[in-house]
Amino acid sequence: MKNNQIISQNNNFAGWYTSVIKEAKLAMYGSVKGTICFMPNGWAIWQNIVKIIDDEFQKIGVKNVQLPVFMKQSDFLKEKEHVKNFSPETFVAKAPNSSEVLIVRPTSEIAFCHCFKQLVGSYNDLPLLLNQWCNTFRVEKNTRPFLRTSEFYWQELHTLHSDEQQARSQALKSLEIYKKVLKDKLLIPFIAGRKTDGEKFAGAVDSYTLEALMPDGQALQCSTSHYLGQNFAKAYNLKFQTKNNDYQYCYQTSAGLSTRIIGALIMTHSDDNGLVLPFSIAPIQIGIVVLNDKTDKNTKNYVKKVCQNLIKKYRVVIDNNNKSIGYKINNFQVQGTPFVLVIGANEVMNKQVTIIRRDSNEKKVVTAAKFAPCLKKCIEHYDLDLYNKAKLRMSVNIVQVKNFQEFKQAINAKKMVKAYFKLSSVNEQKIKEMTGATTRCIIENQPANKCFYSGQETTDVVYFARAY
Amino acid sequence: MKNNQIISQNNNFAGWYTSVIKEAKLAMYGSVKGTICFMPNGWAIWQNIVKIIDDEFQKIGVKNVQLPVFMKQSDFLKEKEHVKNFSPETFVAKAPNSSEVLIVRPTSEIAFCHCFKQLVGSYNDLPLLLNQWCNTFRVEKNTRPFLRTSEFYWQELHTLHSDEQQARSQALKSLEIYKKVLKDKLLIPFIAGRKTDGEKFAGAVDSYTLEALMPDGQALQCSTSHYLGQNFAKAYNLKFQTKNNDYQYCYQTSAGLSTRIIGALIMTHSDDNGLVLPFSIAPIQIGIVVLNDKTDKNTKNYVKKVCQNLIKKYRVVIDNNNKSIGYKINNFQVQGTPFVLVIGANEVMNKQVTIIRRDSNEKKVVTAAKFAPCLKKCIEHYDLDLYNKAKLRMSVNIVQVKNFQEFKQAINAKKMVKAYFKLSSVNEQKIKEMTGATTRCIIENQPANKCFYSGQETTDVVYFARAY
Repeated sequence: MKNNQIISQNNNFAGWYTSVIKEAKLAMYGSVKGTICFMPNGWAIWQNIVKIIDDEFQKIGVKNVQLPVFMKQSDFLKEKEHVKNFSPETFVAKAPNSSEVLIVRPTSEIAFCHCFKQLVGSYNDLPLLLNQWCNTFRVEKNTRPFLRTSEFYWQELHTLHSDEQQARSQALKSLEIYKKVLKDKLLIPFIAGRKTDGEKFAGAVDSYTLEALMPDGQALQCSTSHYLGQNFAKAYNLKFQTKNNDYQYCYQTSAGLSTRIIGALIMTHSDDNGLVLPFSIAPIQIGIVVLNDKTDKNTKNYVKKVCQNLIKKYRVVIDNNNKSIGYKINNFQVQGTPFVLVIGANEVMNKQVTIIRRDSNEKKVVTAAKFAPCLKKCIEHYDLDLYNKAKLRMSVNIVQVKNFQEFKQAINAKKMVKAYFKLSSVNEQKIKEMTGATTRCIIENQPANKCFYSGQETTDVVYFARAY
Repeated sequence: MKNNQIISQNNNFAGWYTSVIKEAKLAMYGSVKGTICFMPNGWAIWQNIVKIIDDEFQKIGVKNVQLPVFMKQSDFLKEKEHVKNFSPETFVAKAPNSSEVLIVRPTSEIAFCHCFKQLVGSYNDLPLLLNQWCNTFRVEKNTRPFLRTSEFYWQELHTLHSDEQQARSQALKSLEIYKKVLKDKLLIPFIAGRKTDGEKFAGAVDSYTLEALMPDGQALQCSTSHYLGQNFAKAYNLKFQTKNNDYQYCYQTSAGLSTRIIGALIMTHSDDNGLVLPFSIAPIQIGIVVLNDKTDKNTKNYVKKVCQNLIKKYRVVIDNNNKSIGYKINNFQVQGTPFVLVIGANEVMNKQVTIIRRDSNEKKVVTAAKFAPCLKKCIEHYDLDLYNKAKLRMSVNIVQVKNFQEFKQAINAKKMVKAYFKLSSVNEQKIKEMTGATTRCIIENQPANKCFYSGQETTDVVYFARAY
């Protein structure tokens, strides 16, 4: 059942993306340029992701706080690298009849420093792991729903430590949480690595990233984790009393994942019939279409029986609308509902259920007795297939190159490139200007080999791509 | 065990309030005046309230969305009453190198109209019940944590209907949800009624409110529900196609409850030992203090046994700190933990648990066998006692008056006043100027009697008080 409102992905990828968002009722444009209104389906996806990540954070002792959107401009100006990078992207606000310029948060390192200063006295108070789920604001020239918006939602985890080793280890631990969520729940394959100095977070010592590859050959940075060292602590005079009763600057990390991940989800899994979603993320996991007379007593009882256990375990919606079968099935499918159960006269009579899978459109008729274990298996296969399909596509679209000629060919063919690269901000910049490709991340400590660009020997393998 | 950091409520109510917030670790001041940082305890209270209200909303078919903070100034200027009232309270924002003035949301009627216009075609699309949980911004002169802050969190429910009766009924239904939550979960007694024209929401036809009375004699508006009629629909040309294929303006309601309710919770229940919280709202519901050697095998096993069922049902924290008994009990109590369980050598030996109630400090030693049903009963009594205590205090602090002399005396004695009042914006204003008291709400259709102020006959009983 093809939904004709969805533009073909092959003909027009950007148009396809926008049409999926519209038809799946995920978001609409806000009245101010670059903003979006999350509609119930879009917001529910985000809330499902929030729950999964928040549960992981709780396990490692993270506490949630909520800090103000507004910051003092004078506070904001203290960390120089941070300011240089964020200033052009920052909205400012003011109250009527006031001359005070307020910074509208583009990220909250500074607001967290303000809190940390009041929370931390001695080493006994460390480590401190605080997170917030919030809206964040950046001025953007080219905006696209979820991928790049003036206002977006995210979590920002900010941690404070008494020594470098512990902080460095936290930065990697935060990344591990994102890896787990992306692989097991969002089913998005990725390359994990460190950012180059040119691409790292402004104010960080080291930035780590998970980079996914979209079907159009563009990379998408899914989440990042930063080891901040003592950069912010020194700028904001953030110290703690050590066991020896002297004072030392704290070590910090921050890590974030934003609503941009919804863009990655859409592009990774969806097709020309609309949205496809991992099972645990879908706002409606199982849609039920009842075909014959709903007032018929046998039908009513049978539907009730099929549903009663489902409703306890899954997010289930029964479509009681008077529309056609095809319309009802398609309506669930375009919104990314992983499984549609069809219950018609035959199913009622034979005590069966027809299960339709969203991704493959595969139909399976099962008896009521075998329905529960069969559905469970279907769900496992569904998630596994989604992941494997995306993983295969990623791997065939990564090309290893040995020289700049091969590099240009690969980038022009919309591939992600993997190459030995001797780290150099100058060469990185040149490559970007010539090809539009940026370094996505570094995989360090590989067997030594020659840089594809400079010919110098290096142990760093670097991934390059054009990027969202 | 008195916590000496808490200022005495009787000596200095405002100081007491601030000290409870500080010692219970609910919030700290932000760097920008009028803003607060929600600390883990404060944010957890809000999240618990969010869960309770959101569950009630789901039951009546409300869907959650998330709309942009920024609105166009030109959109904002369309509903005249709304603008007149909100303009002085509104922050404005802009991007660098842009001349466009953006309104930072003080409320979202206008943003919802923008969405509704795209979502509503015909009567089939109605009613539409959308809600958002979000931050909201108002310029405030005199700010106090939770009660009045430049940025606050709230939910705003916006509903759209095809006829007046249905919309009016929704406005009352929304109020009923707040009533239920305040009475059953937050344990805050209130007076429910309609606002006078002078006190109603700017742009509303009718506003309904729940007014609580704080121990210092000031009223606190806990939540409001508004019937907006077609005011916004006309300003934003929001129409739907009727069954007869003509076009008609929609009818709207909106309703909200904000983080200000945390201020009401603190003041309604807390005491000179710190925070007291209703059981279902407390971030930690049960604190466990283990007294004897934690490494002792018998103790370990016994604590494990006591805890294993508790942890499944309640939010439980075990304090394994090496501090004194008194410190540990007090530490839970000052943060509003309703029950502290003490497990010492005697308790381990006799298979007992000592239960300490936060509000009364009452201690009860129970056997492990009777512990579960006993705790359940304790929780019920605890919530009931909290509500009844607050209800009694409210009722003895409401004074019915017959003339202005009595009125002034009562207001000066920090009472809430109940009186027959012939509605008059002019007289309302005069009374406010002379006494500082404002109308809180109207109870309509009472047996006719004389207005305490003008002497004219009226069937309206009005509550007055000084207010937060």
